[in-house]
Amino acid sequence: MKALPKAYFTEADSAEVVTGQNVNAKDARLKQVMEIITRHLHAAIKEIEPTQEEWMKAILYLTATGHKSDDWRQEFILLSDVLGVSMLVDAINSRRPKGASENTVLGPFHIGGTPEYEMGFNICLDGKGEDMVARGRVLDVDGNPLEGVKIDVWQANDEGFYDVQQKGIQPDFNLRGVFRTGADGTYWFKAVRPQHYSIPDDGPVGELLYALGRHPYRPAHLHYILSKEGYDEVTTHIFDPDDIYINNDAVFGVKESLIAEFVKVEDPAKIAEMGFEGPFYWDVKFDFVLAPKT
Amino acid sequence: MKALPKAYFTEADSAEVVTGQNVNAKDARLKQVMEIITRHLHAAIKEIEPTQEEWMKAILYLTATGHKSDDWRQEFILLSDVLGVSMLVDAINSRRPKGASENTVLGPFHIGGTPEYEMGFNICLDGKGEDMVARGRVLDVDGNPLEGVKIDVWQANDEGFYDVQQKGIQPDFNLRGVFRTGADGTYWFKAVRPQHYSIPDDGPVGELLYALGRHPYRPAHLHYILSKEGYDEVTTHIFDPDDIYINNDAVFGVKESLIAEFVKVEDPAKIAEMGFEGPFYWDVKFDFVLAPKT
Ligand SMILES: [Cu+2]
Ligand SMILES: [Fe+3]
Ligand SMILES: [Fe+3]
Repeated sequence: MKALPKAYFTEADSAEVVTGQNVNAKDARLKQVMEIITRHLHAAIKEIEPTQEEWMKAILYLTATGHKSDDWRQEFILLSDVLGVSMLVDAINSRRPKGASENTVLGPFHIGGTPEYEMGFNICLDGKGEDMVARGRVLDVDGNPLEGVKIDVWQANDEGFYDVQQKGIQPDFNLRGVFRTGADGTYWFKAVRPQHYSIPDDGPVGELLYALGRHPYRPAHLHYILSKEGYDEVTTHIFDPDDIYINNDAVFGVKESLIAEFVKVEDPAKIAEMGFEGPFYWDVKFDFVLAPKT
Repeated sequence: MKALPKAYFTEADSAEVVTGQNVNAKDARLKQVMEIITRHLHAAIKEIEPTQEEWMKAILYLTATGHKSDDWRQEFILLSDVLGVSMLVDAINSRRPKGASENTVLGPFHIGGTPEYEMGFNICLDGKGEDMVARGRVLDVDGNPLEGVKIDVWQANDEGFYDVQQKGIQPDFNLRGVFRTGADGTYWFKAVRPQHYSIPDDGPVGELLYALGRHPYRPAHLHYILSKEGYDEVTTHIFDPDDIYINNDAVFGVKESLIAEFVKVEDPAKIAEMGFEGPFYWDVKFDFVLAPKT
């Protein structure tokens, strides 16, 4: 065991005094992480110069955030989300060559056990909403079609709810599907145009958002996980550019490259070809590019 | 209401993308504080480059810290304490001219209603421990004695417990007293030599301390609040330099100027003069200097 340095506090050396006590840390990574956290934390406090009352407010805010969290609700994840931390951690862990599809956050609504369907299947099981076709290709970074890519897709319905949020109202596995690309790398399935939704705003995170003049909405999107052996798995969304919240996702999930196009198709021949009844459907074409695993 | 800027996420601009959404914050101070917190938080994460698993560990750590907190236990304050944040906030809020007595943290054991005694009173009500005399002067920054200074003192007993932690074992108000200086600015009272003690270590904060190779002890000390109209109130401790934890206070409360001296007196005449029975007592002499209120 190493001898500890003297830890006499001074305002100027505050962070070094604290981290100097970690010389006997068992875990080198934890030691490194706490050194970085302590340094930035002290720098932030020196810049804020909080009063004792403000410090106590922060203590009580964090406590309330913990108390709001249980097996069903994770308020600290929400806090991480609305401060852009979840997106930042995702970005750091999914750096890819230019041209490859970008990641965004997984979100809390992915589930296992989703049925696999033939291409063209309509994953909207209750027929509610405006018809939509999502289609496109999955390519490698050289533009070659990728065969055998597993596409796991899930989305909110036209009222902004996932099936798991409305058990007994929506059918199980509504607006979820797994598809697998063929030799031409194409995919297509039917669904309904998703609607934007609010993250839970009845806790400390909602309070913070409203105090900051922000809103709790996520612009409408479809979630995807694309995976194929030998390629970097992509967890992402594609977004509706016409959604009123497209520029201000409460959790900062929107990246410019993930904005799709929702084209209104009113041609009766095309509507009939898709097997829809009209008077229109939304055509959403989006190609994905997978980078090789590094 | 101002129009929100586009919040399309990029790793490089992550903090600006997030704080850019605060243009409609109602409270300018909150806006400023969140701008600083977000900037340092993102900088820390970019330096740490946490894996998803590490991020989740942090989420669960904060959640557990919240869940450990209730009406009796405040684990986030403990976390603030062991990261030196409480001391830093105290230091920022108690900057004083050179020569004036320095502050340190209040701690959780101060209570109201402590009886006021004549100088010389023995605040050790149960007679347990090694006799001690604490004495000195209270001066202004020019060295003049200050009359009418209220001295509120409290300390742990010789087993490292405060009266409020041992209701029914220690008498109420044991090792607490309020005194008031006379024209000569001197103070003196009898007590027993305090012992070091552990902060609560059975929660997430204790876990962190042990993982960092740290201990949860605070070196032995006496707490003081010194107040007089027109002067900056001093909340502080004086510390025992011979305590084994003097160089490594778990909450970083030690400042060099607050280290006292505990002199062992074995002279039977002096022991008798103090009214002790011997075979020795500890003489602790410490002067305080109050700065004028600014
Ligand atoms: Cu920083
Ligand atoms: Fe979603
Ligand atoms: Fe104490």
